[in-house]
Amino acid sequence: MAKWFCDANAGDDVVISTRIRLARNLKGIPFPGAMTQKDALLVIEKVEHALEEMNYTFTRLDMSKTSPAQKQKLVEERLISPAFAKSTLPCAAYISEDECISIMVNEEDHIRIQCIYAGYESKKAYELISKVDDYFAEKLDYAMHEKYGYLTSCLTNVGTGMRISYMVHLPSIVMTGASDSIFSTVGKMGVTVRGMYGEGTKSSGNIFQISNQTTLGRSEVEIADSLNETLEKVIEKERELRTKLSQKQGAILEDRIFRSLAILKSARVISGKETLERISDVRLGVGIGLIDGVEYSKLNNIMIISSPAHIAFDYGEEDPSSRDIKRAQIIRDALN
Amino acid sequence: MAKWFCDANAGDDVVISTRIRLARNLKGIPFPGAMTQKDALLVIEKVEHALEEMNYTFTRLDMSKTSPAQKQKLVEERLISPAFAKSTLPCAAYISEDECISIMVNEEDHIRIQCIYAGYESKKAYELISKVDDYFAEKLDYAMHEKYGYLTSCLTNVGTGMRISYMVHLPSIVMTGASDSIFSTVGKMGVTVRGMYGEGTKSSGNIFQISNQTTLGRSEVEIADSLNETLEKVIEKERELRTKLSQKQGAILEDRIFRSLAILKSARVISGKETLERISDVRLGVGIGLIDGVEYSKLNNIMIISSPAHIAFDYGEEDPSSRDIKRAQIIRDALN
Repeated sequence: MAKWFCDANAGDDVVISTRIRLARNLKGIPFPGAMTQKDALLVIEKVEHALEEMNYTFTRLDMSKTSPAQKQKLVEERLISPAFAKSTLPCAAYISEDECISIMVNEEDHIRIQCIYAGYESKKAYELISKVDDYFAEKLDYAMHEKYGYLTSCLTNVGTGMRISYMVHLPSIVMTGASDSIFSTVGKMGVTVRGMYGEGTKSSGNIFQISNQTTLGRSEVEIADSLNETLEKVIEKERELRTKLSQKQGAILEDRIFRSLAILKSARVISGKETLERISDVRLGVGIGLIDGVEYSKLNNIMIISSPAHIAFDYGEEDPSSRDIKRAQIIRDALN
Repeated sequence: MAKWFCDANAGDDVVISTRIRLARNLKGIPFPGAMTQKDALLVIEKVEHALEEMNYTFTRLDMSKTSPAQKQKLVEERLISPAFAKSTLPCAAYISEDECISIMVNEEDHIRIQCIYAGYESKKAYELISKVDDYFAEKLDYAMHEKYGYLTSCLTNVGTGMRISYMVHLPSIVMTGASDSIFSTVGKMGVTVRGMYGEGTKSSGNIFQISNQTTLGRSEVEIADSLNETLEKVIEKERELRTKLSQKQGAILEDRIFRSLAILKSARVISGKETLERISDVRLGVGIGLIDGVEYSKLNNIMIISSPAHIAFDYGEEDPSSRDIKRAQIIRDALN
């Protein structure tokens, strides 16, 4: 079964992926910030038990038995969070075969359910995550407050416990220098713009995460509608600036795009940073119709399989310079 | 008939071209530095007359009727000198169909005969130029001195009036930082190393001209043998350093070479300087056996047809930025 980032049917010129996560906790057990090892094991046991009858095949990962490289690989595939990879509590992750569903147990909250799809798929992701959430709600006793909703470790998640994150590619907004003003406007509309791997991380390859700030006081649908409205304005702006950029730069932009494609197809040594920059150019080239025959799914896939931990885990290349050589080979094989 | 730089049978990993020129003057007519317009016309008339019965088809170019762009094009093809292109005297150039022979009338001397071949072809070039020289000697009255030999405008040419110039590609000598020491050693052996277009010009794309300093006191054959001996030491050194560089840099060098080839095949905008640098990498790649299916003649040809005056003259692109776009297209067409 193809993983979310290989889905050949999915793709969007701006939205790389749609991810929704729900934060849930179990009544009567201290939250992860205050829990004992025993509490943590109890939560895992309860989730494990609940999952048994669920109509999904999950790979179960005991985090204490998972190597740092494999954990990092899951971070790169956006299936677990960087914080979860570092946790010292007993933790487990459950990942569906297509990797569209992942469940982290004992991250910041007892349960973090995540659904991810390539492209702009908020409805599809919301439907899937609701199914998992409804199923859990039947089997588990969620910690809830009559007035506020779901209780969570961090106040920012109280209420719906829902965060929708769109991974978006905004090369033209960045190249035209419009990002500061656009992100500041967006910020005033209750929307957060962050780097590629979430909070506190930088943008690479003109990729950003756009997500809702608030989870409280509104329904899931209201939160989604409001976020999508803002997202669509950003998409519109990015598309508008792509047209302007093409008209203004002409051959200069074409040159940049075709050189990047040629380099990805030919390099013998390439860093992760350069890879993301080149993919950004190529993705823009596909978006503005300059490049034919390169699918977004291929670019998504390259972005993931050429990440450091993937190369380290899949090929045993731990050393950065031999990893750069292997990365170049992986990319050539994928594109040629 | 293919021009010298398109000769598919010629090619050498180090020597791009072999050029010999002879400086000759006519007895009883002031040398160009001191001649009148009338003198100049007389020399042209005499040469013209002599050439009439020669068994070669020459294109005759009256320099006063040749546009600056066309003159510059001839400089780029190494058929006339930069100084000749700027002369204010009545001048004429005679160029054989394959461009292997060119004759400048009223350059620094009355007659400059030049033969050029792709690759390391000193014997072939010497045979051809001797034929032309012998023919002229029969028809014209050369200015000669019993003891010194041929008389010329500049003292450095007195004697044989012969200069042999090899255009050589020395990327590994440059990249390993060995050039200063090698060129200084070579200089002590009576050999001059200069930039791409001769005296006072810089090296581009790791291309140099290696030629004899002295023309006096030794026979043509002695001069050639001595120069060739030095040249062969330089060639040997370059090849030795190519092996070392490949071993030391490995993937880094491969990466550089394959990126340069990919960029030449894909760029939409490229400067003349970058073109020479990229061609240098590709030529090295062919030389060390990394690149298959790209002939030296193709690289020679690209180097010439992508030169500024060629693009200006052949396509009417005078503006540097539109020339960079046209250059990229010419190179893509040649390589793809």
